[in-house]
Amino acid sequence: MAKTSEKIPYKIYLNESEMPKAWYNLRADMKHKPAPLLNPETMQPITLDELSAVFCRELAAQELDDTTPYIEIPSEVLDFYKMYRPAPLVRAYCLEEKLQTPAKIYYKFEGNNTSGSHKLNSAIAQAYYAKKQGLKGVTTETGAGQWGTALSMACAYLGLDCHVYMVKCSYEQKPFRREVMRTYGADVTPSPSETTAVGRKILAEHPGTSGSLGCAISEAVEAATSQEGYRYVLGSVLSQVMLHQSVIGLETKIAMDKYGIKPDVIIGCAGGGSNLGGLIAPFMGEKLRGEADYHFIAVEPASCPSLTRGRFAYDYCDTGKVCPLSKMYTLGSGFIPAANHSGGLRYHGMSSILSHLYDEGLMEARSVEQTRVFQAAQGFARVEGILPAPESSHAIRVAIDEALKCKETGEEKTILFGLTGTGYFDMVAYGKFNDGLMTDYIPSDEELATGFAGLDEIPVNK
Amino acid sequence: MAKTSEKIPYKIYLNESEMPKAWYNLRADMKHKPAPLLNPETMQPITLDELSAVFCRELAAQELDDTTPYIEIPSEVLDFYKMYRPAPLVRAYCLEEKLQTPAKIYYKFEGNNTSGSHKLNSAIAQAYYAKKQGLKGVTTETGAGQWGTALSMACAYLGLDCHVYMVKCSYEQKPFRREVMRTYGADVTPSPSETTAVGRKILAEHPGTSGSLGCAISEAVEAATSQEGYRYVLGSVLSQVMLHQSVIGLETKIAMDKYGIKPDVIIGCAGGGSNLGGLIAPFMGEKLRGEADYHFIAVEPASCPSLTRGRFAYDYCDTGKVCPLSKMYTLGSGFIPAANHSGGLRYHGMSSILSHLYDEGLMEARSVEQTRVFQAAQGFARVEGILPAPESSHAIRVAIDEALKCKETGEEKTILFGLTGTGYFDMVAYGKFNDGLMTDYIPSDEELATGFAGLDEIPVNK
Repeated sequence: MAKTSEKIPYKIYLNESEMPKAWYNLRADMKHKPAPLLNPETMQPITLDELSAVFCRELAAQELDDTTPYIEIPSEVLDFYKMYRPAPLVRAYCLEEKLQTPAKIYYKFEGNNTSGSHKLNSAIAQAYYAKKQGLKGVTTETGAGQWGTALSMACAYLGLDCHVYMVKCSYEQKPFRREVMRTYGADVTPSPSETTAVGRKILAEHPGTSGSLGCAISEAVEAATSQEGYRYVLGSVLSQVMLHQSVIGLETKIAMDKYGIKPDVIIGCAGGGSNLGGLIAPFMGEKLRGEADYHFIAVEPASCPSLTRGRFAYDYCDTGKVCPLSKMYTLGSGFIPAANHSGGLRYHGMSSILSHLYDEGLMEARSVEQTRVFQAAQGFARVEGILPAPESSHAIRVAIDEALKCKETGEEKTILFGLTGTGYFDMVAYGKFNDGLMTDYIPSDEELATGFAGLDEIPVNK
Repeated sequence: MAKTSEKIPYKIYLNESEMPKAWYNLRADMKHKPAPLLNPETMQPITLDELSAVFCRELAAQELDDTTPYIEIPSEVLDFYKMYRPAPLVRAYCLEEKLQTPAKIYYKFEGNNTSGSHKLNSAIAQAYYAKKQGLKGVTTETGAGQWGTALSMACAYLGLDCHVYMVKCSYEQKPFRREVMRTYGADVTPSPSETTAVGRKILAEHPGTSGSLGCAISEAVEAATSQEGYRYVLGSVLSQVMLHQSVIGLETKIAMDKYGIKPDVIIGCAGGGSNLGGLIAPFMGEKLRGEADYHFIAVEPASCPSLTRGRFAYDYCDTGKVCPLSKMYTLGSGFIPAANHSGGLRYHGMSSILSHLYDEGLMEARSVEQTRVFQAAQGFARVEGILPAPESSHAIRVAIDEALKCKETGEEKTILFGLTGTGYFDMVAYGKFNDGLMTDYIPSDEELATGFAGLDEIPVNK
């Protein structure tokens, strides 16, 4: 049973009046800015006008803004945040007790909303700017379904159309995710589909394909740019998304400061990087400004190791090569993780901001295999109550590893990790684990070489 | 968009130090006590010793105690509560705005935990007393799966065996619920099964039956009483469960008092009655003591209308007739709701305490049809963000009906309802609704007569 003598509560909730009023733009504090996005047609830095054909103008401006440190959160977005935020900062007393570690473990829990993850933080922001611009609706892609659900919720609240291209294998395997989106009034199309030119092209080249995020992005971009009054929105990777997700780190920092807690290690799972980037933003800002030091760890699946085994190069964000190019750690836009991979975080690339920080040695990256991830997930669920998303469980795995290291060394480190969401829609993967049927897969260098070959063909990388 | 000028926050969270330290036993304030439980063999009031063969001794004592007003919450249970409580009291600003009602709407949200409902409040209490008594494990039944999940979580935390008999149709239709329980280490058996004598008997009489709660209870009781070191636990109906669930109402009352809010109408869905009973307990206590008045509304499905169309009589709690008899509003232990019924709350009887209060005219009861319930659920999800459980949505339906009445009359009533849980595992039902395939069913008087006939045969009712 848990320790009760400590003064830190199990859960620290801020008051609504203590919630952050502005997002923090980490780029403003970076001396060396991330490389600019490139126009795929000209291979030149993309302009605001060009980007505004795909994204709402205000979001395009946020995407390109690497100098303004704070951007005010619109009051309508703040009101929406109040429906599910502030998110609790949880002291993992029961996990500490179970591990018998001298480490103090905290996690910021972003799963207390129907989308089941942190994605809603950016979804409402993006939907808000679309509404403000007078648009009819937005299009997007979704893989596991968290982002699509979040966007559906935001659009239902604001009365916007929402068209989601859902990776076909996920559409078929996760009918309940689909129904949640439909309950919020979204149209959901399995991707690749016959409804777009790029979808038809992909289907012709790869008949029977079960789709990928890269394909779904291409379809969603085409659907947005070919209809009057629509724009495309994206749930990760982009700098604007990391900006909105900074609310995670800002709230965490306010809560920690309130109780005089300073984390030594900050851990987050990394797919496209928005959750990790949002969590670490204000802490990394302090580090960049020389005010404090922290040890940051990005955790990715061994089966999709963009930071630990990828290349730092310009790459397309999508399979159809219609999106701007971003300089990032990438496995190549043609990379698709092995079929046995259950744990999300399957995007081929990584936030350009995080890629840049990693390249400068400001952050560590680790890859973990999925059976160890699910072991951590199960153990965490049993003592802390929350059934974590497989994605989030990557961070749990490394937090436990770090806490066990403290047990060996006797160090009383303070560990903070991001618990991005819940696993209620991932029970097929949990079932596989419960039945002892889960396996690991690490791509060989030869397999990775195929994706890298594509990178070499991009003119700007030559 | 929502009103922002009000002083009441969107969500009122108590501090951990403000959480209730004792459960409230409403029976202590009832002048006329509910009729005693009867031993099914002797038809005489059951004794503590007899009841202790089925339940842990301390829980049996709580079951029979109708005089002690407050029972201390053990510190271990309080620690567990801190992992997911206090639950927020939410001001439904967005719903009010959408309905354009002068009413003020509040809901107590109990869904922020992995079991997805309030059930965990009693699960941890029951598991704790089992552990304290030195038992190896507990057995139970589950229908929709919320209770089984909650008990699995509590047992995993305390290191107790947990054996769940899951109604067969639910076991087959909700494999994900099953996997959550297995992730928490529980054994889950579809009921009726060949593993118990009563299960074999039911299977012989009704080959191919898809089971019922009443059958699953009989199997779980047999499994508990035929093994050394095991006891049976139940998630609703019993007075001990309502005692533990009083934490819902107590927290609500503390939060409301803190902001000077007094509800006029208090609404809860009613299956076995534990959530409604827990929510209203301290308010009903005030009413019984003549200190305040409130209008209480129990909401049940039109397809399983135990309060609105049932009889107030002694009845068995289970199909196998091995449990004590309880005097309650009931449709007869043989009653099974129509196959098209999606919304939970399918138990044939009702808490003896609530039945008694209803019989004395201290509470109103309404039945609602499921398509109207899902309309309310969808509308609520779209403006308040939370995807509600079908069970909880019965309360939402009537809260909206009451708020719309206020819109007509101009009354500025304060409406409080219990939002017992989330609907993440109910997407088959939502899908049916989304596809326009949901239908309603109201049993005819002739259909109800079959269940009532069984009641007439019980000696004590003659």
